[in-house]
Amino acid sequence: MTITLYDIPSATPVNAWSPNTWKARLDSKFALNFKRIPYKTEWVEYPDIKPLSIKLGVEPTSWKADGSPQYTLPAIYYPSTGVYISDSLKIAQYLEKTYPDTPALFPNGTLALQIAFTDAFASKSISIWSSIVAATYFKLNPRSQEYFRRTREEMTGKKMEELAPTGEALVRQWADFEKGFGRVDEWYSKNDDKGPFLLGDKISWADFVVASYLMRYKVIWGEESNEWKTISSWHDGRWASLLESLKEYHIAA
Amino acid sequence: MTITLYDIPSATPVNAWSPNTWKARLDSKFALNFKRIPYKTEWVEYPDIKPLSIKLGVEPTSWKADGSPQYTLPAIYYPSTGVYISDSLKIAQYLEKTYPDTPALFPNGTLALQIAFTDAFASKSISIWSSIVAATYFKLNPRSQEYFRRTREEMTGKKMEELAPTGEALVRQWADFEKGFGRVDEWYSKNDDKGPFLLGDKISWADFVVASYLMRYKVIWGEESNEWKTISSWHDGRWASLLESLKEYHIAA
Repeated sequence: MTITLYDIPSATPVNAWSPNTWKARLDSKFALNFKRIPYKTEWVEYPDIKPLSIKLGVEPTSWKADGSPQYTLPAIYYPSTGVYISDSLKIAQYLEKTYPDTPALFPNGTLALQIAFTDAFASKSISIWSSIVAATYFKLNPRSQEYFRRTREEMTGKKMEELAPTGEALVRQWADFEKGFGRVDEWYSKNDDKGPFLLGDKISWADFVVASYLMRYKVIWGEESNEWKTISSWHDGRWASLLESLKEYHIAA
Repeated sequence: MTITLYDIPSATPVNAWSPNTWKARLDSKFALNFKRIPYKTEWVEYPDIKPLSIKLGVEPTSWKADGSPQYTLPAIYYPSTGVYISDSLKIAQYLEKTYPDTPALFPNGTLALQIAFTDAFASKSISIWSSIVAATYFKLNPRSQEYFRRTREEMTGKKMEELAPTGEALVRQWADFEKGFGRVDEWYSKNDDKGPFLLGDKISWADFVVASYLMRYKVIWGEESNEWKTISSWHDGRWASLLESLKEYHIAA
């Protein structure tokens, strides 16, 4: 029996995935491909996530400030045990435990360190948040735009058109972004003598998290955009080159 | 020939070490003890650090905002090669490279992940900074107090007596501190089935960094203080128990 991956179609008229959801989708696909676990995809439109999750009994991935549950994808269904799992880290941990003979995502007891890494990494890329949200908005179709605008304007208290900074503030935002990635580059460089990955010559889940962020930048801004070209030029081309090293586990975004 | 560790005496009339310097001292001693590398200590009074570093050719550990070099201890002198190293991470890396047959501080390519961890960990304990600085001040002797007050008041723009919050602000600070350590507890708990350390059953440098922070809290507030008792009560006693697990590498603070 094959695992089912519940996923949100990215090019559908009702698509309204947030950048974070999209990144989590990539994490899970990287993990499945890396372990060479066969899976079939079931596409779930955005407004159907909550009712489907409740119907199947998939756990919420978080709770909103008002205490109500928040359901997101990806989720997987594991038919042998009838278990549904949501949240990309939990999915990765479940796959690791269930398929002990496949390549390890968290080798040598590094699970705790890798989770700490993703916290540290997220803080280094947070500076660009408003620009990437705005760039996402302008790529959406009208129905999704309505949803996206409403939820993000509620969250930020700003009109979508005013969300991304301009002029000097934009320059400062990119300087902070480059500085943040500069610190991540320092971490990676510690293992340069052994290989391009965080653990040196061994791929791990943390690399897939970084790669998911990079793919999000590349696809949302576009491969030919100044934004992606700028990121690609940083740190001796480390970021484009890291994506290239993980090419065989890539999936269509 | 024996390594020399240049260290600041903590109970001397001219002692004015900052909490960070003191933590770094502990890191380096943990590392030397863990690897069972013999060393002798050379005590350097605070006002002598800069002239001695310049005289010996020890590199600055950072640069101030005005571009001038900042010298701190610990530093080690490695007599076989005549090399001086400062900065606790650099010391750990140097020991790791120079003594490949001793227990590894960064096993299985985890150097990069461990450095990212220390970034993430520092951000979880930053909320208590003003209270720990103030607590340090009130433990110093008059000459050191003068130095400490002057530099910290310059840095913060606040009188030393007003630095630590009181009342509700103090309660909030401790709530943030507990929440931050709660996240660190989540990381550690991922390997609870294997052991009390970040890598499970294997001690690594990252555990010594956490232990150095904990010892700083324990000694500056005092073992019988409400502050240390509070920290010890958090997360099923994880923190006091982690220190206990590392007891054999402890050093007099």
